[in-house]
Parts: sequence; C-alpha cells; structure tokens
Amino acid sequence: MKLATLKSDSRDGSLAVVNRELTRAQTVPDIAPTLQDAMDDWAGVEPRLQQVYQALNAGDCESIPFDASQAAAPFPRAYQWLDGSAYLSHVERVRKARGADLPKSLLDDPLMYQGASDVMLGPCDPVEAASADWGIDFEAEVGVITDDVEYGISIDKAASHIKLVLLINDVSLRHLIPGELAKGFGFLHGKPASAFSPVAVTPDELGAAWQDSRLHLPLTVHWNGRLFGEANAGTDMQFNFARLIAHAAKSRKLTAGTIIGAGTVSNYDSTAGYACIAEKRLVEILETGAAVTEFMRFGDRVRIEMLNQEGQSIFGAIEQEVRPCR
Amino acid sequence: MKLATLKSDSRDGSLAVVNRELTRAQTVPDIAPTLQDAMDDWAGVEPRLQQVYQALNAGDCESIPFDASQAAAPFPRAYQWLDGSAYLSHVERVRKARGADLPKSLLDDPLMYQGASDVMLGPCDPVEAASADWGIDFEAEVGVITDDVEYGISIDKAASHIKLVLLINDVSLRHLIPGELAKGFGFLHGKPASAFSPVAVTPDELGAAWQDSRLHLPLTVHWNGRLFGEANAGTDMQFNFARLIAHAAKSRKLTAGTIIGAGTVSNYDSTAGYACIAEKRLVEILETGAAVTEFMRFGDRVRIEMLNQEGQSIFGAIEQEVRPCR
Repeated sequence: MKLATLKSDSRDGSLAVVNRELTRAQTVPDIAPTLQDAMDDWAGVEPRLQQVYQALNAGDCESIPFDASQAAAPFPRAYQWLDGSAYLSHVERVRKARGADLPKSLLDDPLMYQGASDVMLGPCDPVEAASADWGIDFEAEVGVITDDVEYGISIDKAASHIKLVLLINDVSLRHLIPGELAKGFGFLHGKPASAFSPVAVTPDELGAAWQDSRLHLPLTVHWNGRLFGEANAGTDMQFNFARLIAHAAKSRKLTAGTIIGAGTVSNYDSTAGYACIAEKRLVEILETGAAVTEFMRFGDRVRIEMLNQEGQSIFGAIEQEVRPCR
Repeated sequence: MKLATLKSDSRDGSLAVVNRELTRAQTVPDIAPTLQDAMDDWAGVEPRLQQVYQALNAGDCESIPFDASQAAAPFPRAYQWLDGSAYLSHVERVRKARGADLPKSLLDDPLMYQGASDVMLGPCDPVEAASADWGIDFEAEVGVITDDVEYGISIDKAASHIKLVLLINDVSLRHLIPGELAKGFGFLHGKPASAFSPVAVTPDELGAAWQDSRLHLPLTVHWNGRLFGEANAGTDMQFNFARLIAHAAKSRKLTAGTIIGAGTVSNYDSTAGYACIAEKRLVEILETGAAVTEFMRFGDRVRIEMLNQEGQSIFGAIEQEVRPCR
C-alpha cells in the first residue's frame, strides 16, 4: 500500500491512498483524515486503507490524478524525527572531512540524533536558506515510520513496529555544523527542515528487496540533472531499522508516527557515487589533495528516487530546488 | 490567563481554562478542543479564552474542580521541544562535573539542544526509568510556548511570539550523558520525557516579575520534602527568551506550539541552592573533594513550584515520583 499526504487548507494536510503506479489517488476522510490519525490506530485503520488500495489498483473506485508536486510531507509536522547514521562509510568520510575523531563504539553503538520535526517539507518544496555560503548539502536516506513502541523494546520485537518505509532528503548546512557540534549539544542550525518522498509504502510493497529490516535497492541521486550516486541502501548498512528503533527506545517509549532515518546511504565502493556532496568532497581531498566540488547554490536542483527491480519508481521522486529564504 | 490540558480518552487531552487560584476549570471544546488547536490560531482564539477566564475568576460560569493530578502536559505530544542553557553557572558546574571543556563562545552564543517531544509528562506523572543506576536527576526550568515564528527572526521581534510561560522538569539520566555526548550527536538516551507544570500562563499573569523576557522570581525545588533550591530565575540568566527564540530560528521557522526552555535555573550564589542534583554534587567535589549526594532512587519525589510576590502558586506544582518502568 502507498500513502501520501496531500496539501490542503489544514496544517496537517489530507491522507490519500495512492495506486501502485503513482498515477491515481483517493482521499479517505471517513477512514483517517490525516496520516497521524491513521498511525494513532494503525491496527484498526490499515485493513480499511488496504481495501481502498486494492480498489484503486483495480480501477474500481473514484479517484483523482496523483500529482507529486501537490504532496506534503507524510506528516507536515511530526512528533518525532530521529536520524541514525547506519552507513559507516558515510560516518568515516564525513568525520574525516570535518577533522573529527571517529567514535570508539562505531561498530556496535548506533549514532543517532534528535532532529527537528515541527516543519517537514513535501517532495517538491524548495530548500530555503538565508545564505548560499552555509554549505547547502543534500543527504539521501531511507527511513521508516513506526506505531507506538514500548520503552526498552528488544531488537527482536522492534521490526514489527515498522509500518511504512519512505525516502528522505536530510538537508544539511555543512558550514554551520562543525561549530555547533563543538558546543556539544548536537545539531540545531546545521539540520534545517528535511524533505520526504511523495509516498510512504508498507514493507510488503518492497517484495524481496526488504530483508532483515534493510532495503536492498540502489538509491539514485541526481544533482542538476546529472547522476551523482546510486549506492545500494542494503549494502554496508551496519545497523538495520530494528536495531535503530531499539536504540531509540532504550530509555523511553516512542509515539506512533515516529520517523527514523538510517542516515545518508553510502557504500565503501566509491564507484557507486554518493548520496551527499560532503562525501564526494572528502574523496576528492583524499585522491587529489583538494575538494573541487562546491556545495549547492541557489537555483540548484536535487532529485532522489528509488526504482524497483522492474524499473518502476517505488516512492516517487524528491525533487527540490534551492532558493533564498523569503 | 491560565491554561491546562486535562487527561482524556484522546492522546492530546482536552484544553481547559483554569482560574487564577487554580481551583476551578472549564473545558472549551467549542473554542479550541486542544492547546495545539489554540496555538494554531492564537490571535483568533485568545480573546475568547480570555472571556472564559474572566468569567471563571468572577465565579460567573459553570466550572469543575481543578485537580492538578489529572492534568497532562500542555501538549501530551508536541511538535517541538528545544532546551537552551541560559544560566552559565549551571553550564560551568555541569561541564566541570563531567570533565568537559567549556565552549569558547559561552557568553554570546546560546547552548541549545533539540529535545524529544513525542511523549510529554503531566505534572504528577511518574518519572519512569529502567535502572536506578542511570543517575536519575531533575532539572527545574522555566519555559515558553510560541506561536509561528518566521525564519531568521530578529531578537527584537522574537519577544512578541512568547504566548505562554510554564515550568519544566527536564529529567536527566546523568550516567548515560557523558558517553552519548562523546559520540558528538547530542542527547538521545540521557534526556527522556520531560514533565510540565499543571498550567501554562500568559505573560500578563506574571506582572512586574516578567521583565525583558525573563521571569524574576525564585523557583523552589523540594526533594523528598526538603528544600533543595530556590534560585531566582531572573538572576544570572545570560540569554533571555527572546534571544533563545531568535537563536532557535536562525536557519528555520518554528511551528506554533514550540516549547523553548531556558535550561536549569542556577545562580552563582550557591546559598540559593540548586535546581538539579548534578550541580550540588559538583559543589561538594569542589568544597570537600568528593560528591556525597546520590542521584534519585525509586520512590524518591521531586516538587517544583514558583510562588508570586503574594505567596500564591503561579503554575501549580510539578510533583513526581521516580518509579521503575513498567
């Protein structure tokens, strides 16, 4: 099943079921007006949404055209956004790039930060920044949405709480990050609003590509129309989503609608390219002594998408332009 | 005006107007079912809530008894919780206590972290922890709730976005913090759910004690019935709330209902006592060479309250017991 939130007069948008081909949609106000409403009672609501999905795929019900540019983030404002950093090649390259030490516990203790969730961007909303000198970067990621998760949940039980899977652009302002991380309290200015794919999907939509709470498909990133990376999201993922959920819930419960990202997809094999500019710059430094690729400028565009084995877009594309903030 | 969220069958509780003496309440489903609904349209809703408040204070309308133990957090789940650290005596003592360096920019660049907001505790909800060996501590704070704040707002304009003021217990798990801060991504396990005072109040309720976006009154903290601290929240506050809001909004807008704390209240004059155990322990180390005060144990209780110049409780009391998590 594929779900989107359509922009509306409400701050939380309108939940819509979208067909597999991402061409038709139907809002479902009688089942759940918003995605948060659906997550609040997922067990009760999901079967009814699935019925709509079946009818939509069969062309057996009323529908409207689905236009990704009219999609909001799944939760235009969310109660929680936690981002892990499960791809160690990314962690190693980015930490080297900013001259930071590698955590000693890298291999068995996930890195994760509490992100801002009060404003979430739709797939085609612009990335707005006050200055192009802040080092504007994209980070292409895979994430999951959970229902309610109990305090201290085990890794074994955590996988069952993965209800939806989606793509994320975790926008980063690289030049603001070293200074604020040096203060010791994590990200604040360096991680502004993130953007999300047009639809979130139930894991069964991913077929054999979803294994062991990992999504084994390439995540393609285009920057100004040129292929920038196609790293496989299932390769080199040190911590799977079940592990990340259990990590998040070590000392607290998680409320339904929690979004957990796995961090910038990255493969040790650099011929796969990159899912953020910072990594490419570091490899340039290692190979030539200097970074030649600049960060994004106003007017630049990034496109993030994942195709299934048949070449069809699973989530639709995140496609954003960088603009000066109004 | 004083507002509370009463526990109900809904995850978001029911908004209630509470009288000045904190004895009577009235829910206002026709004006705004929840506090988030009120914040989403504060300019339109506030005058109507004020009318109820006037009638309630005059004994001129129907009401129910107000029972703080039935209050939820103002937002039982919130879209954003940001906690500053505006009292430099606290920052200096805590950083010394964990052997961390003081940030160079201490005097002119606020410390602030993105906190978990998906689960917020009512004033009398227990503090639950999986282990009493995690170093369970309270942090008594003053916070504000904003309406929508524009991207990059100036300090001058930020004060007008302070709509409500409240008290916070920013529960901290001291023994989990050094390890996770060393990883560089800020707090995750060390800052579980925070608790909030029974009511949040509009700044006009604070009279002359509210000046220059600071609350100039002692914040009293009792631990197991004994006075632990009564530091003045207006003294030694390096960054006022307007400054903290502007800091938070440097690279993004803030959604209505954002909660911003000023960090553990702390005075350089240690005869005022402390608003968290960690500070008392550090002073013990400095004075005697060793900390003798232990952190909280299961069954311990903390009470956080602020009285006005007439000795009346402004916000009601946060009063929590520490319990093993279920």
